[in-house]
Amino acid sequence: MNIISDEPACPGFRAAGIAAGIKKTGQPDLALIVADNRAAGAAVFTENRVKAAPVLLSMDRLRTAVPQAVLINSGGANACTGDEGIRDARLLTGSVAGRLGIPEESVLAASTGVIGQRLPVDRIESALGPLVDDLSADGFPRAARAIMTTDTHPKCIAGSFSAGGRDYRVLGIAKGAGMIFPHLATMLAFAVTDFPIAVQPLEEILRDAVSRSFNAITVDGDMRTNDMVLVLSGGTDRPGGNTASHNGSFREALTELCIALARSIVRDAEGATKLVVVTVAGAPDEVTARRAAFQVANSPLVKTAFFGEDPNWGRIIGALGCVAGPFDPSRADIRFGDVTVVSGGIGCGADREALAREVMKQREYTVTLDLGAGRSSFTAYTSDLSVDYVKINADYRS
Amino acid sequence: MNIISDEPACPGFRAAGIAAGIKKTGQPDLALIVADNRAAGAAVFTENRVKAAPVLLSMDRLRTAVPQAVLINSGGANACTGDEGIRDARLLTGSVAGRLGIPEESVLAASTGVIGQRLPVDRIESALGPLVDDLSADGFPRAARAIMTTDTHPKCIAGSFSAGGRDYRVLGIAKGAGMIFPHLATMLAFAVTDFPIAVQPLEEILRDAVSRSFNAITVDGDMRTNDMVLVLSGGTDRPGGNTASHNGSFREALTELCIALARSIVRDAEGATKLVVVTVAGAPDEVTARRAAFQVANSPLVKTAFFGEDPNWGRIIGALGCVAGPFDPSRADIRFGDVTVVSGGIGCGADREALAREVMKQREYTVTLDLGAGRSSFTAYTSDLSVDYVKINADYRS
Repeated sequence: MNIISDEPACPGFRAAGIAAGIKKTGQPDLALIVADNRAAGAAVFTENRVKAAPVLLSMDRLRTAVPQAVLINSGGANACTGDEGIRDARLLTGSVAGRLGIPEESVLAASTGVIGQRLPVDRIESALGPLVDDLSADGFPRAARAIMTTDTHPKCIAGSFSAGGRDYRVLGIAKGAGMIFPHLATMLAFAVTDFPIAVQPLEEILRDAVSRSFNAITVDGDMRTNDMVLVLSGGTDRPGGNTASHNGSFREALTELCIALARSIVRDAEGATKLVVVTVAGAPDEVTARRAAFQVANSPLVKTAFFGEDPNWGRIIGALGCVAGPFDPSRADIRFGDVTVVSGGIGCGADREALAREVMKQREYTVTLDLGAGRSSFTAYTSDLSVDYVKINADYRS
Repeated sequence: MNIISDEPACPGFRAAGIAAGIKKTGQPDLALIVADNRAAGAAVFTENRVKAAPVLLSMDRLRTAVPQAVLINSGGANACTGDEGIRDARLLTGSVAGRLGIPEESVLAASTGVIGQRLPVDRIESALGPLVDDLSADGFPRAARAIMTTDTHPKCIAGSFSAGGRDYRVLGIAKGAGMIFPHLATMLAFAVTDFPIAVQPLEEILRDAVSRSFNAITVDGDMRTNDMVLVLSGGTDRPGGNTASHNGSFREALTELCIALARSIVRDAEGATKLVVVTVAGAPDEVTARRAAFQVANSPLVKTAFFGEDPNWGRIIGALGCVAGPFDPSRADIRFGDVTVVSGGIGCGADREALAREVMKQREYTVTLDLGAGRSSFTAYTSDLSVDYVKINADYRS
């Protein structure tokens, strides 16, 4: 994927983002993404057993209908709102469908914000006219801004790739997963592409891309009630559309896009000062590699050591020892960047630790744990656990 | 169990605690507990797959020998030290056995401190004479002080209970589980009793007591490489010893003792400002109750809300939703102290939250989550996640 640095856009799609007055601050809080033609769509939703109303509605519609638009609001999660929350989501998406002249079932919904309060439906309803008017090919940065809660900047990335001798676009917007007053800030991401692809391979490719990107990041270890990653392909009726043999290029591009968005989420995590890439290599299988990477990447003790720029490998070995699997956690190699501090489970001495400390002063670096027990690997992306993380998350909702 | 507030002691046992120069600070760092007679003993060890040398040695000896003494040092974990670490532990316990005139196999070992460095064996060896000289019936508070690492005060609790018309003692010392420079601070606890009991029921009763106390506390979610809880009964050859029918009173007393010690560990956790008792009730089974209690008690988002004195029940519902089991997380009741803030998954409004905020200003309080799906319950003990926790844990080891 080649990153496109000028105005991000994707043929066949328009987007909008405006302030509807859902947020008390007056910041943008309502976004819309629309495909000009009926799109092939696939989505991955939160695995939390408590699912917000828009998640339930979107899951339901994706099972039977072809999606063409998604309405997204920040400033309210519409979660733990019971049947009324479902009715609110249905009403608003229905109104969008009417204005766009498309079937109600082809409009999905996503929400992010505080749990347990109903959306200000009237206020949103009266903003839908201006929202639809705002739709344009260059509207994605505005949409990215409108879905922000705790993010310090909008996340919008576009790229191009070739498949079967033609050029295609992928474009994605996302918002972060941290939690801060007054929001229960869901992780949301929406990608569009003009690459023509059928629903089934699209679903499989999205699931794979998400497992290596959004499901490989950890800020605080809990699953959100509202999380959603959606991809729409607007290219199904494009003349000379691709064949399945070109899907590999699309898979690669979508995975790269998702990883780039996921990294930008971790980089912007509340109070985070570091993006640490935790790679487990030499694992007996990918399940073990993933478990080990997350045990380390989620450990508060390891994350505070990242914040303190302390190559405290005892904590890493301790975390590895909590993982079951056919490997010996006490025989691992541990590297900070290119500096090996533990070889076969034995510390390499204070000189190496001093070098590792220099690596840890960087804003982003990799920690590699080689289990020496196979050929599988997994990479997780984590933040440090900083003083500011606690301060931000401890704030009253007021 | 009646807490004994004067000089804690237990008939048939002596203890000692001195400064052996293992810690650079000159603080006490070497302890010994000895039974006058051969004791019945049982222990629970860390489930971490990486086990320190003293853990491996003690596990091995408990399988075949009857324990009579335990040598404990702080200032060094003797973990990730390979075969040399095992030899060091064997050497030191052998020397203790020689001085006490008891079999080498009857001396157990425990260590706490930084991982990956060998113990200063010569220095410890030359302190063993003074250590044995220091043994006395009133030595337990000194032993409690010598096993401290990050604890701000020693933890030593004694109590009495009646069984079969006789009075018995239980006495325990413990040290906390937090991690701080320069220590990988293991959770350690040692209990003694003059209640006569056979090994098998003692093992079962200890496991049960530990599951409700030391294994019900969470400070940072990781398992330590050195954790150990040991109980010694010195009463096997006591005239008129008890029968198995009296074990219930002992079970109750030992469980109470362990919970009291565990609570004091959480209360003294690094940077903690709160002890929060998280009780899950109405669970379909105990496994689900335990999982739900820990998911909530371990959540950084929930723990920062405890620090912020914010009854942010959305985060609690979100954590419950991560737990699999035959219950509906979105229908739970949530109480802070006696104040119900969520009933059947629906928030009870701002007035109740204001009352809950008052409850949360206390140093210790209970959060009850009623799942309404059965009769099982489990209680976990957690700390808040404070700014100081991060500051302390982020400090360099040097």
